[in-house]
Amino acid sequence: MPLTLYFTPGTCALATHIVLEEAGADYELVKIDFGTTEQRSPAFLALNPKGRVPALVTEHGVLTETPALLIFVAQSYPGARLAPLDNPYALAKIQAFNSYLCSTVHVAHAHGMRGYRWADDPAAIAEMKRKVPESLGATYEPIEHGLLEGPWVAGDRYTIADAYLFTIAQWLEDDGVDPRRFPRILEHRRRVAERPAVKRALAMEAS
Amino acid sequence: MPLTLYFTPGTCALATHIVLEEAGADYELVKIDFGTTEQRSPAFLALNPKGRVPALVTEHGVLTETPALLIFVAQSYPGARLAPLDNPYALAKIQAFNSYLCSTVHVAHAHGMRGYRWADDPAAIAEMKRKVPESLGATYEPIEHGLLEGPWVAGDRYTIADAYLFTIAQWLEDDGVDPRRFPRILEHRRRVAERPAVKRALAMEAS
Repeated sequence: MPLTLYFTPGTCALATHIVLEEAGADYELVKIDFGTTEQRSPAFLALNPKGRVPALVTEHGVLTETPALLIFVAQSYPGARLAPLDNPYALAKIQAFNSYLCSTVHVAHAHGMRGYRWADDPAAIAEMKRKVPESLGATYEPIEHGLLEGPWVAGDRYTIADAYLFTIAQWLEDDGVDPRRFPRILEHRRRVAERPAVKRALAMEAS
Repeated sequence: MPLTLYFTPGTCALATHIVLEEAGADYELVKIDFGTTEQRSPAFLALNPKGRVPALVTEHGVLTETPALLIFVAQSYPGARLAPLDNPYALAKIQAFNSYLCSTVHVAHAHGMRGYRWADDPAAIAEMKRKVPESLGATYEPIEHGLLEGPWVAGDRYTIADAYLFTIAQWLEDDGVDPRRFPRILEHRRRVAERPAVKRALAMEAS
């Protein structure tokens, strides 16, 4: 049974999509339309009660949360060498990076569109949105100045962390963060975009 | 060289502390005093530029982010069987759970004390704090009604995810969430508290 990735264009589901392409995995894509709030439809909630993408249907069950999907693909396709699976320290560095992206960088981004999660008062929601360029920008400083080892996140080898950083960094301009503040991240984004697997994933999401 | 865990009592560093005890690891503890903002001291920032706990010093370098530390300990001490290391699906389920705790549950909690990360206006910060019982409580619903398989998070076997849920669930009452809404989580918390490793970790943090 092939894997099935439920995704929405422009979301962090792209990271998992990219690594499925990098791994040469046998998978199908299903688009969930945020425009019609399809992520809240009974059919999708039955699949993922959290009502979010990505969700990956496997022969064993449904998996969610990008850092988990990334390591799942890396471990399921070890030949693709997308993570240093047998080196606890090196693997933990990558997990730490991915954890920082989901719990700090993506969360700062979410305050621009999803402030209602944490406040009801429209003025408070507007205030969170106003601060996004500053609060989100601040989360990129540790990446620019250390976490991104270069040329890839974990050094000489492309890993799942590169696909994830590339995905999240797509949103910089729309969130009002000037990417020229982060030349190393910008160069990384340019380099990841040149990978054939990334081009294929982006083309599929645009079609 | 033994591991060194930098921790602050009452923080999510407890999760890593517990699994180090469960693993029988050789480690030292260093307390960082949030009361004197020691996490912002030059000495600590040199160790962890993000200025947060936990940080784990290993012979190879410093690791941060709880989900990464947990899998690092599990993988470094495989004999303790703290995670299903060789089963990609089962391991991804645990990573997904831990990822949800750090990016959704812990983040909702953080809006009570650290709203300044996402807003400057005191009224907006107060509004986030006001909503914590509701917004944080909502993040526990998927755990109570599915993610916590029972008796342990991942079913029959205690894993790193149990130490993490136990740690985060310590904060329910202080955050104004009535834990009686979540009888399965409450029972889980009670059961984890009975483990000798957990009792040892809590006693060390209190001393």
